[in-house]
Amino acid sequence: MKLKFKDVEGAIVAPPGFRTAGVFCDIKRLGTGKGSNKGQKRDLTLIVSDVPCSVAGMFTTNQICAAPVKVCVPRVAKGIAQAVVVNSGNANACTGKQGMKDALAMVRLTEKTLGIKDGYALVGSTGRIGVTMPMEEVCSGILATAPLLGDTADHAAQAAEAIMTSDTKPKQVAIEFKLGGKTVRLGGMCKGAGMIQPGMSATGARPAALPQGLHATMLGFITTDAAIEAKVLQAALREAVANSFNRITVDGDMSTNDTVLVLANGLAGNKKFGVRSSEFGVFQTALTHVCLVLAKKIVCDGEGVHRVVTVRVEGAKSIADADAAARAVANSALVKTSWHGGDPNWGRIIDALGYSPATIVESKVDIGYSAPGSRKVLWSLKRGQPTKATYKELCSAAAPKEFDLHIRLNLGQGAALMYAADLTEEYVEFNKGDVTDPTTLGG
Amino acid sequence: MKLKFKDVEGAIVAPPGFRTAGVFCDIKRLGTGKGSNKGQKRDLTLIVSDVPCSVAGMFTTNQICAAPVKVCVPRVAKGIAQAVVVNSGNANACTGKQGMKDALAMVRLTEKTLGIKDGYALVGSTGRIGVTMPMEEVCSGILATAPLLGDTADHAAQAAEAIMTSDTKPKQVAIEFKLGGKTVRLGGMCKGAGMIQPGMSATGARPAALPQGLHATMLGFITTDAAIEAKVLQAALREAVANSFNRITVDGDMSTNDTVLVLANGLAGNKKFGVRSSEFGVFQTALTHVCLVLAKKIVCDGEGVHRVVTVRVEGAKSIADADAAARAVANSALVKTSWHGGDPNWGRIIDALGYSPATIVESKVDIGYSAPGSRKVLWSLKRGQPTKATYKELCSAAAPKEFDLHIRLNLGQGAALMYAADLTEEYVEFNKGDVTDPTTLGG
Repeated sequence: MKLKFKDVEGAIVAPPGFRTAGVFCDIKRLGTGKGSNKGQKRDLTLIVSDVPCSVAGMFTTNQICAAPVKVCVPRVAKGIAQAVVVNSGNANACTGKQGMKDALAMVRLTEKTLGIKDGYALVGSTGRIGVTMPMEEVCSGILATAPLLGDTADHAAQAAEAIMTSDTKPKQVAIEFKLGGKTVRLGGMCKGAGMIQPGMSATGARPAALPQGLHATMLGFITTDAAIEAKVLQAALREAVANSFNRITVDGDMSTNDTVLVLANGLAGNKKFGVRSSEFGVFQTALTHVCLVLAKKIVCDGEGVHRVVTVRVEGAKSIADADAAARAVANSALVKTSWHGGDPNWGRIIDALGYSPATIVESKVDIGYSAPGSRKVLWSLKRGQPTKATYKELCSAAAPKEFDLHIRLNLGQGAALMYAADLTEEYVEFNKGDVTDPTTLGG
Repeated sequence: MKLKFKDVEGAIVAPPGFRTAGVFCDIKRLGTGKGSNKGQKRDLTLIVSDVPCSVAGMFTTNQICAAPVKVCVPRVAKGIAQAVVVNSGNANACTGKQGMKDALAMVRLTEKTLGIKDGYALVGSTGRIGVTMPMEEVCSGILATAPLLGDTADHAAQAAEAIMTSDTKPKQVAIEFKLGGKTVRLGGMCKGAGMIQPGMSATGARPAALPQGLHATMLGFITTDAAIEAKVLQAALREAVANSFNRITVDGDMSTNDTVLVLANGLAGNKKFGVRSSEFGVFQTALTHVCLVLAKKIVCDGEGVHRVVTVRVEGAKSIADADAAARAVANSALVKTSWHGGDPNWGRIIDALGYSPATIVESKVDIGYSAPGSRKVLWSLKRGQPTKATYKELCSAAAPKEFDLHIRLNLGQGAALMYAADLTEEYVEFNKGDVTDPTTLGG
């Protein structure tokens, strides 16, 4: 469904009835300040709706799953929530029983402080793995944030900053569209730069066929004033995530904390709709649009990323084959370093296709390049044979900061795409860190 | 079986009856010289036995499989061979029908030049993918090499140089041991530095359960004067490769050309033996030793490699699970960059375990460090909980150029190990290449 959406200001507080704020409460660097942002990035935010919301969520399928995910899954399953507390600087992952106590203490203090019902708060965390939460700071952060809540673009910007870790930029979006005759808004923010290849499901349970090499913490929070049943919202989110956050990879590492939550407070006053209605199509398309805008911002802001490549596989024997082929190419160290070099090295691409679990027939493979979204493809390989395109022409096609890589396997109807990053010296430099300064060592 | 082997000089010509030589014939840089080594690395070698040999081989399971592999598979299946021609600088992969013609022309010219029977020569190639072979240079190289053949350590060194691509060092070994009362020798050489995670099988056909993320060209050539039936030799090689070359990873990329060949000329005069004999155990152990020495040289000389880590997984539900867990850790960009930084980041390790296809239970996982081969392990995590080991102690354990990473899943009896490299800025720098100088762009 092709629809046009009007961009609006305010991100997660663009929809009526939502408020947010973000503070620095010293989770990132113990001891340098409390409750205020003394030159530090904010590290705690609350998002709250004036009224209870339908809620949907998608969570990491990593078997090592952080405490905040374990707290959220059963709460989201009940379909109703009103607030989210999120911190950066500590993932509360691999923190055992204490971690579960801390995550529960976070949602309970949030509920109490905001005066909302027990069980109506959710929690997200991102940062270093294996360190217990500095709960004194976290609790004072929650208390400090509550009186600051507001619904301006500045409030949204505080929240978008508070969830950042190695991100260099806040990532926000908001749109407005018509749904059942009413004006509805969708707002969102996300974070993520490394440990990025989400593979999320609604329960955190692994699908029977696990996508190849899933993997970095991304957190996404979406708000809307649409009136929608939680089950319908979950169906829309599952499809939206499948076509956005679950299609990106920076480094192929799936995090312990990946989470996307949507809160829908119903204040737009539209009539609720089922999954077979035309309204669902409109809402689904809008939600996918918001998720995709946010997902692409993660790849573009990935650690050390210079080039972003959309890997488009068509003609695979099955969708699973197309997905496996796209992920093999998108995660190959040799392909990613060649992208960094601006080298249209189809040999490395066909090599990665060949070792992927997808069925490949060398004499049928086409490989080509285009501008993002363009159908004007410069083919380097057709049916396994080099074309007459010159090396210089191919280099020009692989030179832009963003381009599309087209792979046609010509074996069937399966198609899939991945939004992928190159692999650069800066990525390595950043992630090797400095053992003499543990604050440089990310999750 | 624990056996001691005596190291000897001469590598692939250490066993009696083998001769070799290597020349520069301008495959690597067209136009700068012919038949002689004018300051360039050699790029073509012949290995020949005085008498026909039993032969065994293991080949890439990549579905995109180079012409030399396609030529070798049916020849090796016949169990008899007498010579091998190998070139570097061009992989003869993705070269279509012309590539097959060229690979066949190489073996035929070798047979004719050396005066051996039709079908008795094998071929190996490594280098850039997708460029047809410069056959004029290759043919003159074969003709130039034949009169230079000899059996000194210097001849072996020429051959070991001629198969190198991005390798910084030649890789050779030879041992002597007793077999059925006779003195027997095994010699070997190999190449490989990037596009390294071999997954080889005897026919190039993929096993039902494909190891996760296989992948770079490695070539290995082994000679012996043992008398052994081809079928017995193949059984020994399959087991030796499974425990050596198929256990290494530099960058997780499996090549189109991975090949290991063994020629056994029988001149030691031992009595032939079956796979259930004690002699088989001795030979198997010796062959595995040779393969493992060579395989480890590949990881240590991997592109930009600073640290080599042996990932030892025990207690997995199955061997397949242990293999999957070891490969997920050994190929994680975040784990590999942390090794480069000397950072004992168990959070990234357990994250990679969690997204691997292996069953993992967080509260059962142990992670620790030791010196290579040592059982004195410093545990950072026991049953999912951080130990009292200090960060400084753990950093010391992860600081050496080589160390062992111990992972116990405590769920069953499955064990596997991987010899893995870190991921460095130099790897990226090397592999991004320079598009203005295509000679820098590897396969």
